Formats: sequence, C-alpha cells, structure tokens
Amino acid sequence: MKKSLIFGISLLLTITGNAQQSMPAHTIVSETALFEREYPRVDEQHQAYFRLYAPKAEDVKVNCCGTFAMQKESDGWWYGRTTPLPVGFHFYHFLIDGVAVADTESNTYCGSFGRSSAVEVPEGPEGNYYRPQNVPHGQVRSVVYYSTFEEKYRRCLVYTPAEYETSFQKRYPVLYLQHGMCEDETGWATQGKVNFILDNLIASGDCNPMIVVMDNGNCGIPFKPKPGENPEEAREAFGATFTPILLRDIIPMIDREFRTLSDREHRAMAGLSWGGRQTLNTVLPHWDKFAYLGLFSAALFIKEDEISKIHNGILADSDAFNKKFHAFFIGTGSEENFGAKQFSDALSELGIKNTFYESKGTAHEWLTWRRCLKEFLPLLFDECP
Amino acid sequence: MKKSLIFGISLLLTITGNAQQSMPAHTIVSETALFEREYPRVDEQHQAYFRLYAPKAEDVKVNCCGTFAMQKESDGWWYGRTTPLPVGFHFYHFLIDGVAVADTESNTYCGSFGRSSAVEVPEGPEGNYYRPQNVPHGQVRSVVYYSTFEEKYRRCLVYTPAEYETSFQKRYPVLYLQHGMCEDETGWATQGKVNFILDNLIASGDCNPMIVVMDNGNCGIPFKPKPGENPEEAREAFGATFTPILLRDIIPMIDREFRTLSDREHRAMAGLSWGGRQTLNTVLPHWDKFAYLGLFSAALFIKEDEISKIHNGILADSDAFNKKFHAFFIGTGSEENFGAKQFSDALSELGIKNTFYESKGTAHEWLTWRRCLKEFLPLLFDECP
Repeated sequence: MKKSLIFGISLLLTITGNAQQSMPAHTIVSETALFEREYPRVDEQHQAYFRLYAPKAEDVKVNCCGTFAMQKESDGWWYGRTTPLPVGFHFYHFLIDGVAVADTESNTYCGSFGRSSAVEVPEGPEGNYYRPQNVPHGQVRSVVYYSTFEEKYRRCLVYTPAEYETSFQKRYPVLYLQHGMCEDETGWATQGKVNFILDNLIASGDCNPMIVVMDNGNCGIPFKPKPGENPEEAREAFGATFTPILLRDIIPMIDREFRTLSDREHRAMAGLSWGGRQTLNTVLPHWDKFAYLGLFSAALFIKEDEISKIHNGILADSDAFNKKFHAFFIGTGSEENFGAKQFSDALSELGIKNTFYESKGTAHEWLTWRRCLKEFLPLLFDECP
Repeated sequence: MKKSLIFGISLLLTITGNAQQSMPAHTIVSETALFEREYPRVDEQHQAYFRLYAPKAEDVKVNCCGTFAMQKESDGWWYGRTTPLPVGFHFYHFLIDGVAVADTESNTYCGSFGRSSAVEVPEGPEGNYYRPQNVPHGQVRSVVYYSTFEEKYRRCLVYTPAEYETSFQKRYPVLYLQHGMCEDETGWATQGKVNFILDNLIASGDCNPMIVVMDNGNCGIPFKPKPGENPEEAREAFGATFTPILLRDIIPMIDREFRTLSDREHRAMAGLSWGGRQTLNTVLPHWDKFAYLGLFSAALFIKEDEISKIHNGILADSDAFNKKFHAFFIGTGSEENFGAKQFSDALSELGIKNTFYESKGTAHEWLTWRRCLKEFLPLLFDECP
C-alpha cells in the first residue's frame, strides 16, 4: 500500500536535491515562490536571489532584467543574484548551458517565453494599492463560452466588484482589459493584481464599481512573419482575430451572463503593449461600441504623419472625436520607448484630448501597467448611476 | 521606438529555437500546449511526443508515466516518445543531463514537482463527461479572504452552477473538494475539469446543483520529516493546518459570501490522495459539520486493526455512524494500491455502509479522480429542495 507513494516521494526528493547553503542575510522569500519553497528571494536593496540544482551543468545564468552569471557550489547547486531591480514583478528564467528553462521553485506566469518564473520585489507605500487590504473583495470568475468565430470553447476571466454579490438590481459598466504579446487572459489577474487595484480604488471612492473582462488576445507567441510573408501584413494580422471575437462573441456573452450596462457610454477598452495596439484597432473603427480607451505602453508602429489618416481619418476631426470619447489615456514607463509621448503629443496637436501618464523609473514591465491601470480607472464612467 | 520590442522578439526566437523536423504522422497537438505551440503531441495509439531544444546537452530524457530516452537531431532539438498511455492527464518533465525542468511549450500545472508540464490524451466517449458540452456553464470564481488562523490573505476557487447567476432566492449545498500532495487549489479546476463534470451532470439531471469549494490544503511540497523529527508525528502534522483553516475561516466565509445551505445535511467533503486523508481526518472528528465524505485514492496509512479505534472510535458504532452519514465513498484506480479496497472491506465488516468504486486501467492519476468525482456527485444531497 505504501510502496508507490514512498517511491513517488523519493523521486521528488531526488529531483529537487537538498541545498545546504544558508540563506543570504536580510532576504525574504518572494511572494511568487511556490508553497514552502525558499527561493526566489529578495533583499532590502531590491536584489533578487536564485538557485538551481544542476550538478553536471558547465554554465548557468539567470535572466532577470539582464543576464547574471550563477556560481556553482560543491553540492551541485548554483546560486545567482541580480543588481537592484525596480519594485514590482519581473519575469526570469535560467539558462543551463544555453537552454532556457523555468525555475521549479517559482510559480509560473504566462509571458516572456511560455510559462515563465517570476520574482516580486515588494515595497510598502508603492505596493499598497495593489495589495490586499481590509476592504470588500471582488471576485475573478473563470467563464466558459462558445466562440462562433473560432468554432470552439474559450474562457475569459471576469472581475466583479464585491457589491455585485448582493446588489441584484444594479447593473454595471464594463472595462475590457487586454494583456500583451506572449501573455494570456491570466496576466492581469495574476501579475497585474487587477482585483486588488479595483478593490482598493472602489473602497476609497476613487473609481466606480465596474466589471472587468480579461480574455485571450490571440497573441500568445512571439510575433514572427512566416517564410515568404510580407512583414507589414503579418504584423497587421498578428492578434487581429481578437477584434471580431470580442465584438461577436465576448461582448454579447458578457451582456447576457452579467448584469451590465450595455450601451457605449458604459463600455471601455484598454490594453498593454500588443493589447494596447489591439485596443486602438478595435475601438477606433468601432467607436459606436466604446466611449473610453486606454493604451499602456502600446505597440503602435504608426508613423506620425499617418496618425490623422488611420481608421478612416477618425483622428482628423478632433471636435467629433472629443464628443465621442470621454477618456483617451496614454501611459508609458519612463525607461522604455514605445513612442507613447510622441503619440500623445501628435494627438494633442490634432486637437484630440488625451491624458498622458509617465510611470517614473519603470520600463516595459508590470509595475508600469499596474500604475497605468490605477491612473486610468478614475477616468471611467463618471456619469454612472 | 521599435528597438526594444524587436530586441525582445529576437531574444525569444533565440531561446525557443526553430525546429525543422516535420510533424509525426497521425498526431495532434495536446490541449495542454500553449497558444500555437506544436508540442506536446499525441497519436491514435495514445503515445505522447515531446521535443526540446538543448544543443549542448549530452543526455535528455522525458519522464511521463515512465522515463524515455530522447534522440538528438543535428539542429540541436531532441525528440522523444512514450509507449501508449492511459486516456486523460499526465504530468511530465524533461531531464537535461539529470536536471528536471518543465517544458516551455506546455502549460504548467501544480503537481509532481513545482509547476509541471502535462499532456492530455483525448478519447471520445470517455472524455465527454469532462469536456465542455452545449449545456449551461457554471463559473469558477477566485475568492480572496483573510485567514485568522494563518493571519494572512488566502484565496480559494469556488464553482457555482449556471443557475446561481439568476436564481437569487435559492440556496445551495456545498462540497469541499481537496487536491493531493504537491498540488494546490488550482488542481481540480484545471486538470480535474471540475466545472465541466458538474455542468454535464447537472444538465443531465444526474447530480444536484451545488457549490464546490477548492482551497489550498497546505501540502504543496513533498512530505519529508525534518532531521531529528519523528516520521509518524511529522506525517500527522503534514497538511494538518488545513482542518482548522477550513473550519474557522473557509466554511464561515463561504456561508457568508455565497447563498449556501449551511447545515451539516447540505455539506460534503472529498479529496484525492493526501486530500483524501485530510477529508477523513476532518470529517470524522467534526461529524456535526458534514454528512457526506469521499476518499479518492486516499493516503490513509491506517492499520486494519486500528480502524475501529481512530477518532474516538466513531467507526466502531456502525448504527450511529450510518445514521449520521448519507454517503461514504471510497474510490481507487485498478492500477494503484493505496489500500482502498482493504479499507472499504474493513469498514463493511464493521457494518459501516460505504460505496466502493474502482476505475479500470488507471493508476494514481487524474483520470481516476475525474471518474471518482463523476461517481461520487450523484450520491450527494438527494434530499435537497
């Protein structure tokens, strides 16, 4: 009776090894570590610490906001440390003799390559808005639906505010919120901390209670034109199936399954990186469906002199545009350059009202997007009942 | 503007390589593969196919229901194949020169070691009860709560049936359903397919609509006594904190946040492997809280002559026991031996009514537990309104 279980345990212990090194001083286990694992760790200087058991490897590195060599101890474990990192969430992976692998001691998150490891650098005041507080908590629901466009079942994640559970007569506005390239519908709900950001802003009265829908943007793999494909056309096509899925399948399903306010005045869309691109390319041609949009570090690739021409010239008529849209948010990290500032300035020159936000000290990373969400949410649905 | 994005894409393509080999004939991509990945694959004989890019490795194996050598091609990719596998879900990992790593092309699941890769062997008729069908779909909700026992925030997953969204006056019975060792609260909702099993059984009228709560059983690491620790005592303590967390924190929170029927007649508990052990050790001493229990491949470690003595001899008085409990389900795979049959027989000899179920051709694996759940659910809450 006990034989197969004991065999299983022995196998696991063999695989995971048994590190002898004592813990580095002044470090704590990252919240991304799996249950009772001791790594990855972070210290007060925001340096991250990693370990890996690979007795036969000749060269082990860790890639976490840069590539850092790891040192081998006599017991077969390799140890590595980064330089000080920005606060927040950072993907990492090991390179074992050049092969990129995830860490078996970390939880995994969709991004970077496949399911990636990650470390979270905590900080008190910065983090409070995205940490659980003693306030009413909303739920994040996994919802299965059939896509008539793809002819298969899909699932999306839906944040509902705490009061949704008891206010059976009330209907809510909806934000459609998209992830970036190589990520999926779990991004905002895990590394994005979307539920805590909403819970805290709703509790403090800084944003209206709303439903937030996060779906798979069909851009979960690195963009790469196929052999013989026109690169520009390939880029236009990459993730472009998401727009018809959203319009045909997701929005009608959400308006059917949830107590929504289903007019354009109560519907917003936002996204990060490739999801920002999808937001612009969904909302502008379908302005009758949305009244707010947010681009977080958006991957736009629009030449400045073409801005007034895209999507039937909708950005050329600023008076009409400004009447249609109640918020046009453009966010970026100060340490990245996806052209957000230039885009915002070009829009302003055309007379298009927009809100530009720069996250200090952050690059193309999740702290930028947590902050963008926090800045964007208060702009939404002010005329809500 | 484009430089950092293009750099990122180049890095990803370097990491993931670019396999040249054509696809093995008569194979399909496993549903566990990440978006647009081509591996892992399965064929009609239920063999699984894997690949890994590791040009400098000397020896690569894949562990998937056994260990299989992989062969290196000239382009640096390794390819491997299993023998025919049982239908259903199987964890796997690679061994690169002895180092166990997950596959970056597969989704990851909590189990085996840390976040593991997995392959799903499909089959038509077997799979229909755990596949999405054209029936009303329930939701799986992620719920955050504060544990007074652990003094920290935790989260659980809660299945609510489709009708929960609209039957605002109705209250529902609750099943608490636990995962096994090395797993977490996501197990039943991902590899367990709990929502589809419930959706389909509810739609066909084979089980009552109910709420299912899945939480982290605090046994997410291989059990191993610490140096100097008594092994028996260590085993008793392993995962034992879950019982007070369930009784003090989780059940009151669920009864507060959801429309439950909160008496013992409408509360059940079940679990697989270590979760089966936790079920027995929670329900028997707290029989005033539960009226149904299910043990799926439970890791009990109870000597036959001690059965009548455990938990104040509750199993010695069969008349009283049979009046208290309306279902005592004991399930196992035919290809494993955790002593389920012996336990069921010993209970029957004591006069304790129980339902024994054997899953044909399966071992200590998720198809056993999907089937156990399907057999167990129809026994629950028959007197429901």
